Amino acid sequence: MVTIVFIGFGNVNQQLCRAFRASNDVFVKQVFNRNFIKFAAPYEGISFTDSLSTLEEADIYIMGIPDDAIASVSENLPFQNRLVVHTSGGITIDNLSPKNRKGVFYPLQTFSKNRKVVFDNIPICIEAESTSDLEILEKLGNIISENVMEISSEKRAELHLAAVFVNNFVNYLYEIGSKLLKEKNLPFQLLQPLILETAQKIEDLSPKEAQTGPAKRGDEKTIEKHLKLLGDSHYKKFYKLFTETLKSET
Amino acid sequence: MVTIVFIGFGNVNQQLCRAFRASNDVFVKQVFNRNFIKFAAPYEGISFTDSLSTLEEADIYIMGIPDDAIASVSENLPFQNRLVVHTSGGITIDNLSPKNRKGVFYPLQTFSKNRKVVFDNIPICIEAESTSDLEILEKLGNIISENVMEISSEKRAELHLAAVFVNNFVNYLYEIGSKLLKEKNLPFQLLQPLILETAQKIEDLSPKEAQTGPAKRGDEKTIEKHLKLLGDSHYKKFYKLFTETLKSET
Repeated sequence: MVTIVFIGFGNVNQQLCRAFRASNDVFVKQVFNRNFIKFAAPYEGISFTDSLSTLEEADIYIMGIPDDAIASVSENLPFQNRLVVHTSGGITIDNLSPKNRKGVFYPLQTFSKNRKVVFDNIPICIEAESTSDLEILEKLGNIISENVMEISSEKRAELHLAAVFVNNFVNYLYEIGSKLLKEKNLPFQLLQPLILETAQKIEDLSPKEAQTGPAKRGDEKTIEKHLKLLGDSHYKKFYKLFTETLKSET
Repeated sequence: MVTIVFIGFGNVNQQLCRAFRASNDVFVKQVFNRNFIKFAAPYEGISFTDSLSTLEEADIYIMGIPDDAIASVSENLPFQNRLVVHTSGGITIDNLSPKNRKGVFYPLQTFSKNRKVVFDNIPICIEAESTSDLEILEKLGNIISENVMEISSEKRAELHLAAVFVNNFVNYLYEIGSKLLKEKNLPFQLLQPLILETAQKIEDLSPKEAQTGPAKRGDEKTIEKHLKLLGDSHYKKFYKLFTETLKSET
């Protein structure tokens, strides 16, 4: 039985908490959060504190707080030599205070309120300073995912950057699509089968092989029509950048 | 029983042909293609011609050829007053010659070689000049999809433009992600659960609600790190455009 204390209770830690509580191998001992939380299902019965000084003893402390709070909160923990991990893609392991054993437990996924994440095949990127701590994190990761791997801080930074492109920026293109349709009173749902197929396709084809469309085939007439349709919209900048890049790489 | 002749046999018509042949309500009578095709499974047994003059009689002629060939090929058809449709998102119904009854049968999906498309919930956008032809196309669409709807040429143009954003451009962002990982010897597969969740999320949340990431939360430190990681790469232009836009809209 592994015991866990969550430090911070935003989207990531909430989803981890839910997943770990479904297992008999983990006991979620306590949640720390700066602001009071009244736990409702599926979190009922967890011990809560808003004071670092009353943190209980646990095998692993999982920090799910803003990147720029990690250094100071980890420095203010009232104990030493315990395993303290953060869950961030964007910062190195060395942001954690050296007074405890440092680690990273980064699930490479997008987390939103009110949307349950299934961890089964989500990559859990782990990092630690010792083999024994790495083994503890590997064991913990395997409880919720089949896809646990050691990733250095340097490689994790690149992963996080790539994730921004394929998640944040992709989602913004969905928003553009949604807005364009709204202007013509067309429902966004129309695009969903296409969006899903676009994502699923690259399980079989590389993105390079999967690329289609007017820019790829140098179809200037269609490109011109599209630019005209976009008018003065600021989406035009996106259209031009993608189109010019795709044309130059074909 | 509806009889069909396919004119052109690229990705779209191949997938339509496969789907229609799985139904007892459609008979694929013939395929015309400029270049000879030796049919293998699942297309064996279809009658082939490379000459418009030997086209057989059918209820519907489905053109799946490049946009800029549609006007001339439809003009060169050796018959009149039959139902001739194109499958293009990018051009109006009026690109078809008026010597036949004009129609559009546009499946809003991305088609690649060697990837079987399941049409079940793919929107089939239909257009015709008469109610009776519209009914014929609706019946045909319903054989392969639950999602057949009348869409005007004007609205179809906007749909096609939106599709370019959520398919072509999204796929290019996947390619950027893949290249960034390759530079660090990380497998692209790592990003696939994230890519899939990003696409599935917007079935429940609007893209606006689903938006996360450093630009959305104004996390300048992470943005600076990312720009540094990107170095002189031309991907920097994409990063900056998305980030500045997301920041300005938050």
